[in-house]
Amino acid sequence: MNYKLALKILGYILLIEAGFMLIPLLISVFQAEAAAVRAFLVTIVITAAIGLPCSRLKPAKTAMQAREGFVIVGLAWVVLSVFGALPLYLSDAFPTYVDALFEIVSGFTTTGSTVLSEIESLSRGVLFWRSFSHWLGGMGVLVFLLSVVPLSGESIHLMRAESPGPSVEKFTPRLRTTAKRLYFIYIVLTLVQIVLLCLGGMPLFDSCVTAFGTAGTGGFAVKNASIAAYGSVYLETVIAIFMVLFGVNFSIYNLILLRRIRSVLKNEELRVYLGVILVAIALIVWDTVGTVYANFGVALRYAGFQVSSIITTTGYTSANYDLWPPLSRAILLILMFVGASAGSTGGGLKISRIMILWKAMRRQFRSLVHPNSISVVKLDGERLDEPIVQATLNYFFVYVLIFTVSVTLIFVCGHDLATSFSSVAACLNNVGPGMGPLVGAVGNYGFMGAFEKIVLSFNMLVGRLEIYPMLLLFSPSLWKRRGKRG
Amino acid sequence: MNYKLALKILGYILLIEAGFMLIPLLISVFQAEAAAVRAFLVTIVITAAIGLPCSRLKPAKTAMQAREGFVIVGLAWVVLSVFGALPLYLSDAFPTYVDALFEIVSGFTTTGSTVLSEIESLSRGVLFWRSFSHWLGGMGVLVFLLSVVPLSGESIHLMRAESPGPSVEKFTPRLRTTAKRLYFIYIVLTLVQIVLLCLGGMPLFDSCVTAFGTAGTGGFAVKNASIAAYGSVYLETVIAIFMVLFGVNFSIYNLILLRRIRSVLKNEELRVYLGVILVAIALIVWDTVGTVYANFGVALRYAGFQVSSIITTTGYTSANYDLWPPLSRAILLILMFVGASAGSTGGGLKISRIMILWKAMRRQFRSLVHPNSISVVKLDGERLDEPIVQATLNYFFVYVLIFTVSVTLIFVCGHDLATSFSSVAACLNNVGPGMGPLVGAVGNYGFMGAFEKIVLSFNMLVGRLEIYPMLLLFSPSLWKRRGKRG
Repeated sequence: MNYKLALKILGYILLIEAGFMLIPLLISVFQAEAAAVRAFLVTIVITAAIGLPCSRLKPAKTAMQAREGFVIVGLAWVVLSVFGALPLYLSDAFPTYVDALFEIVSGFTTTGSTVLSEIESLSRGVLFWRSFSHWLGGMGVLVFLLSVVPLSGESIHLMRAESPGPSVEKFTPRLRTTAKRLYFIYIVLTLVQIVLLCLGGMPLFDSCVTAFGTAGTGGFAVKNASIAAYGSVYLETVIAIFMVLFGVNFSIYNLILLRRIRSVLKNEELRVYLGVILVAIALIVWDTVGTVYANFGVALRYAGFQVSSIITTTGYTSANYDLWPPLSRAILLILMFVGASAGSTGGGLKISRIMILWKAMRRQFRSLVHPNSISVVKLDGERLDEPIVQATLNYFFVYVLIFTVSVTLIFVCGHDLATSFSSVAACLNNVGPGMGPLVGAVGNYGFMGAFEKIVLSFNMLVGRLEIYPMLLLFSPSLWKRRGKRG
Repeated sequence: MNYKLALKILGYILLIEAGFMLIPLLISVFQAEAAAVRAFLVTIVITAAIGLPCSRLKPAKTAMQAREGFVIVGLAWVVLSVFGALPLYLSDAFPTYVDALFEIVSGFTTTGSTVLSEIESLSRGVLFWRSFSHWLGGMGVLVFLLSVVPLSGESIHLMRAESPGPSVEKFTPRLRTTAKRLYFIYIVLTLVQIVLLCLGGMPLFDSCVTAFGTAGTGGFAVKNASIAAYGSVYLETVIAIFMVLFGVNFSIYNLILLRRIRSVLKNEELRVYLGVILVAIALIVWDTVGTVYANFGVALRYAGFQVSSIITTTGYTSANYDLWPPLSRAILLILMFVGASAGSTGGGLKISRIMILWKAMRRQFRSLVHPNSISVVKLDGERLDEPIVQATLNYFFVYVLIFTVSVTLIFVCGHDLATSFSSVAACLNNVGPGMGPLVGAVGNYGFMGAFEKIVLSFNMLVGRLEIYPMLLLFSPSLWKRRGKRG
């Protein structure tokens, strides 16, 4: 383990965080929010004071191995959250530091689970920071770092470890260009959404914050009733469409920029993603029209919004889906696990991973029926390397294992099976709200104890970073071999 | 698909079933149970009348491929259940044929889920048949057939498809000898248990039926309160020990007969199996002593029995574990999925399969930390073939997929998430009783609708036959290629 290199990168991360905190600081200054101003000032000073000397370190070697990429990304997200929680705690917006930590982890991991039932009384600075963490966490803070700081070529490992999905598309050969292009697409889409929301009459502050939550597929709102508070079909439609857009693999947008439309149309994950959304909406409309909703239009409005929100793991709500019939609720619960596309800002297992699992299963069936045939797993018409198939199968087992252990831990704290199951599902998949009266569409996580909040925070990090960066932090062999690579 | 060969084997299976039904017929005659006598007579005549001509078929080829082994085993179990349910239905013991089918599928698959709340009023003949189906299903009906009828060498595929676990140990080169030896061990252990139960004062009929339920790890009792009805520490201890014994891979007993004690001690699955049992008992004793149970002895009595019953997926109850604290209930719920050893009569995922998944996961971690190292998965000190590792990883995904679809189907019928989850867990893992007030230790499945009962019956078959024989029944390509192998 190259400690100096790790510290240097963590130093950069802290400086970036301190820099971004200047925006909520300014907002709080303008709004004359004394407590928030003090909280942000103190945090910025502490964060920069620790970050600056670290970033000035000169490691002997700047080469990086895959495992170091994982560990640095894991550490970076923990550090980011530990310091990011300070303003929430210091401004007295949250009763305990654990609550503040849960909230900011939920922010950075683009989960959107909150411990608060009353959010409208929070200061503007805190509300902004809370939602801005979605935006930062969505595309990735390491990816941002790579787009502004020239690091060694091997820092592709950082990007791999932070990007969701079975494998990173290598769509440009140069890392910094890729990182910049990702952020360019991300910023443009976010700005377009802000403009469209403003045009619909949403206040500028709300528009920005809502767009951050959409772009990062996070889901923190500034109203207690989430998006339902605005009661506007236009706003709901804009948000629903942008949720779906941010759940698309960003390499698709790159292909569109490069005018390679044929490759876009050939993309299997995109087709399955859109197909699943349409089928889910159709089923829920069929299930709710005449029972919960008076007519097709109303059912389509709420089903469309909620399906987009849940499959992209955003978690905005425009309706209390806990009152829907069982089939509709089952579909939403399954979509929580399905998640969005690889290479998007969404969470869950990811469409392409499920496609690989499905194809591997079909291959297994084929090999039982025709034992002597040899068949490969293909995606987008190309053969998938066996190690990727194997890694995906392994990923699924580790995912279920972590899910099971987490549900058990929550259950043992005395919560019922449905609440334990649904809160872990919502946090591990970075959705935000779960199912049922407690943690569902109109609930929050405030009633849980500190231990449960830490377990769920860990789940959110595991979900956002796709397990390995977090689990490898606990691998002793990684920390021992210091001499070897200096 | 070799239809003639399939029909011939199904014919044999029906003849064996008709033959075994003579025992409950005789019991009913002696007990003067008119309805049961009529029901068994009618069923035996029908079953034999269909089975006899089929078994006389002379297929042109007797060679068999793996896929045919799967399909024949899948069909055999469906046919066995369809005819086995007749006496339950015809004797008016069950309100509908679907109820009778659920009950006998639960019997043959050694699940032990019942639709009845009142079982003590059933006729002796029906009670015997219900429990005897556990005994038959435990070791496998095809395995029985192979031990009495000389079939072609390739019928190893039948045995593979019916035997639980990632792979069949080839402990003797000759199939018929293996099948006979398995049944020899099975019969001896069952007889020893019957004698020990009788010595403890249990009536002979109850002893036989209880031993069948133990041997097959089924769990049907003849008392409404299951084993708790006898209130005897001695009987509970005997049953608990025999449940553990029947959850051991039968090749271990073969090794003991061959005096290869060193191989027995080296067996990893055996050590993990016993280790998990001890740890689970210790944790539950620690969790319940002083809260539910007054002292260590009482806690050990109930924890020991319930852990043995659940991990072996038997499902006998000596205590209402739904009143235990959350940790103890969580342990039982996890043990339902863990299950017993491969090559035993128990269900669940199987210890060795979980060990392979765990080892594959550790290998994946190693390959992340040391990308250039090549490592293999070992079991009992020997290298596992990659196809077995891959098949196990695939199995896990299919298992979770079937679990998810089944829970969704039950949930959509209007049952709550906990009940849906727990009833599928209990049926797919062949445990029997689930968790919670409805399907738990003191509940039953009678309140569910016909559709749910059929879904759960399918789950039981899928669990007992380890998925593929049942799923391949739905593979069109298997049924089409009739010309090829005639």
